Amino acid sequence: MPPTQSGSMESPRNTVAVVGGGLVGALASLYFAKRGWKVLVFEKRPDTRLPENQGFARGRSINLAISERGLSSLGRVDPDLESMVLDMSIPMHGRMIHSPTGHLESHPYSVFGEHINSVSRSDLNSLLLSKAEEYPDVDIYFNHSFTSADFDSNTLKFADRANNKEVTFTADLIIGADGHYSKVRQELQRKTMVNFQQEFIEHGYCELTMNPKNGKFAMDPNHLHIWPRKTFMLIALPNLSNSFTCTLFMPWRDFEKIKNDDDLMALFNTHFPDAVDLIGHDNLKKEYFSNPKGNLGYIKCKPYNYKGKVVILGDAAHCMVPFYGQGVNCGFQDVAALDEIMLSASNACNDSTSSMTSNQLQAALDEYSATRPKDAAAIVDMALEHYIEMRSDVSDFSYKLRKNLEGVLQKWMPTRFMPLYSMVTFSQIPYSEVVKRAHRQDQILKNVVSLSLTALSVCLVGIGVRYIYPLASIKLPAFSEVARLFRKP
Amino acid sequence: MPPTQSGSMESPRNTVAVVGGGLVGALASLYFAKRGWKVLVFEKRPDTRLPENQGFARGRSINLAISERGLSSLGRVDPDLESMVLDMSIPMHGRMIHSPTGHLESHPYSVFGEHINSVSRSDLNSLLLSKAEEYPDVDIYFNHSFTSADFDSNTLKFADRANNKEVTFTADLIIGADGHYSKVRQELQRKTMVNFQQEFIEHGYCELTMNPKNGKFAMDPNHLHIWPRKTFMLIALPNLSNSFTCTLFMPWRDFEKIKNDDDLMALFNTHFPDAVDLIGHDNLKKEYFSNPKGNLGYIKCKPYNYKGKVVILGDAAHCMVPFYGQGVNCGFQDVAALDEIMLSASNACNDSTSSMTSNQLQAALDEYSATRPKDAAAIVDMALEHYIEMRSDVSDFSYKLRKNLEGVLQKWMPTRFMPLYSMVTFSQIPYSEVVKRAHRQDQILKNVVSLSLTALSVCLVGIGVRYIYPLASIKLPAFSEVARLFRKP
Repeated sequence: MPPTQSGSMESPRNTVAVVGGGLVGALASLYFAKRGWKVLVFEKRPDTRLPENQGFARGRSINLAISERGLSSLGRVDPDLESMVLDMSIPMHGRMIHSPTGHLESHPYSVFGEHINSVSRSDLNSLLLSKAEEYPDVDIYFNHSFTSADFDSNTLKFADRANNKEVTFTADLIIGADGHYSKVRQELQRKTMVNFQQEFIEHGYCELTMNPKNGKFAMDPNHLHIWPRKTFMLIALPNLSNSFTCTLFMPWRDFEKIKNDDDLMALFNTHFPDAVDLIGHDNLKKEYFSNPKGNLGYIKCKPYNYKGKVVILGDAAHCMVPFYGQGVNCGFQDVAALDEIMLSASNACNDSTSSMTSNQLQAALDEYSATRPKDAAAIVDMALEHYIEMRSDVSDFSYKLRKNLEGVLQKWMPTRFMPLYSMVTFSQIPYSEVVKRAHRQDQILKNVVSLSLTALSVCLVGIGVRYIYPLASIKLPAFSEVARLFRKP
Repeated sequence: MPPTQSGSMESPRNTVAVVGGGLVGALASLYFAKRGWKVLVFEKRPDTRLPENQGFARGRSINLAISERGLSSLGRVDPDLESMVLDMSIPMHGRMIHSPTGHLESHPYSVFGEHINSVSRSDLNSLLLSKAEEYPDVDIYFNHSFTSADFDSNTLKFADRANNKEVTFTADLIIGADGHYSKVRQELQRKTMVNFQQEFIEHGYCELTMNPKNGKFAMDPNHLHIWPRKTFMLIALPNLSNSFTCTLFMPWRDFEKIKNDDDLMALFNTHFPDAVDLIGHDNLKKEYFSNPKGNLGYIKCKPYNYKGKVVILGDAAHCMVPFYGQGVNCGFQDVAALDEIMLSASNACNDSTSSMTSNQLQAALDEYSATRPKDAAAIVDMALEHYIEMRSDVSDFSYKLRKNLEGVLQKWMPTRFMPLYSMVTFSQIPYSEVVKRAHRQDQILKNVVSLSLTALSVCLVGIGVRYIYPLASIKLPAFSEVARLFRKP
């Protein structure tokens, strides 16, 4: 079915320039095309869908976990898209915890069978770009590296790398979807007062490939595998090619200690012996020493816009550590949230936003920028905290007890109690609301625990009075005897 | 006396590239020249010492308050410099508080007569550049705007604006002293993991000139004048030309309300009636509407260096709001602190650091970057808090009581008690230590107050028992009577 583009062709149509053709930029292009805009997409890399350019896709994590927020944002722009993405994903129903002895323990993500989905970043990106290109008014400029912009005159400049020249475009609206090191954000910071925070954590990561065994998955593909080791951890996500992409997360000081094969094998043989067999000695050494070590950090900033001229989305606006698997989900939700605000600000009776006036655009971007940063900041913080849960808590007894109790409460009163992980991953509750609700639920949990302990105490006293007391030689004084002690003669 | 340059001419000498010829860059150039380095200074503006270029000096505050930390950092590189700067300054012994009715009240800065010094930014800058140029091996390149650097190959690129071409230099060490919007810091952020925070406050500022009256100062020149109005304030610092530079600090929303002359005069007539007369109606209107409105914010970051290749100093490393008058003092202290660390890392028996190896340089910059950021962060925070004191607390009764009590304690035990303002302004105690000591002193103050209140209560009870109780008709029961109530018969 060819895509339908909203908006009458007679009214003047706005043009949007989307800087960045990664996941968020590609989805934004789809949304704007659907809403009737003329869309220009600028991507600094060549077209990685072409076989000769696939090496350029490296440098970001190979696979990611897409869940409710991401999927519903895909479905909002194209109902078929959600199922297409699920078709190219592998469901992960829970965590598989690997103990240092190789013992396995499955922890389901949900008592209702909900799951997350491992998908290839480049496959997803290719799909979205191709879907966007189906619209007649979407032009994608590859090899175009954003250099500068004059927001007031709606002008953008790019280095056209293929032809080695500078080119200039104009657009009514600029979308900065150019990721962590966003140059659009840098221009925004020059143009207006942007509160900005960037922190790196003391840990880094290294990706390692676990190849198929006899053409099949080397481990259960329907789990996210974790080797939690308190201060560091190894994880593995399945790929459609029947391999796993493993990621070692570890403090930088520990990475620095690994200078040769022996150091590496000492670490893996001690802490991940089962992974050594599955990854293979030689492959492990080759991958560890040849693959880049990535850093981990976060970015928060505010505002996201300058007037009705420019707005930043996705990692350009908020980076997070990868531990909640929410980076792309949050980025996709950004696009859907902006779309919703623009639709209601456009006052159009059809589903088009392409004739919005500059005042309407400013009102929409101002509203987006007034509401979205608090949700982004909430998931940035939760992602940081989740690292501790993944690498250490998951193997604790008290953690398991809590998870079980949460499961019971969720089954018992599903509308009132939803575990934090479920709220983040399987719901669309705004992230900032998730934080508040989790706090309230913690109170409920504490009350349940103290109520249970009280009930247990009462039972124990009852047992004591019924069974133990008759066996003892002591005598309880009567109430009247005790009261008499306090009475005047 | 011609300056002496340390370092044997026979040993290979290092070259330092100082990016930014402002206050901190100029002082750094002096220090490195003194320590025997070949010094290249790059400044994007033309030489503002030349009469035809003085318009370029605008854009930063006109005058600033230099005090102990700044002066001693000047004296460390050249003992004459401190007195030369004091000669071109106007001492300010305290704050002059202007009430809304025009009532004046002087609050001395110190019980020992210590003072701060109002000095012209451009005069100070010119002096430092001229002093640096006295060294034969200092070359200053004006109209050179830093564009990029490859730290690993010690290469820097500049746009030579006068000749409209790109030029390349190499240097063993790069000093980023290019201020708030530092491009060297941006390169550093690309090269290494820099934790970075930039926040703007909701207030802005506007400078206004109060011209001399009959050739003389319109107000007492030996005070920093403040019109504290809780949520906003006006301040004034004296200039050598017998004028005052006034600065209005106010929330942006209040600036936005002033759309015409009437709005402006309503504000000033209500809150600063005496200032209206002194600045002059017409001059006030002209200056307010023609002068730019500046924003206020801060920057914290860490680390400051990349290996032994580059280090950022002054505002490039830490911006602060101007309310403690410590921006330039902290920047100058940066230079002196780095010099001290480099001297001890160089292992030279003379006072030269110009033959330091790259390992020694790295050790020195690593140490500087491990120690200095906590002091910078401390004064950044204190400067923010000081705004509240200046615009509101200074007119409170409890504030004055506290200031008086602090003065008494400082006179009584000067080695153990020094008010916060004195520690920041008149001492060289590291800023981070100031924060800790201020916290301990707050405890002492609280103890003194509660001890005093206890003593007062005892006195009052004594007075009651001695004089009031005999006049009353009640009778106090004996202790034995009370005790009997609790005893069994």
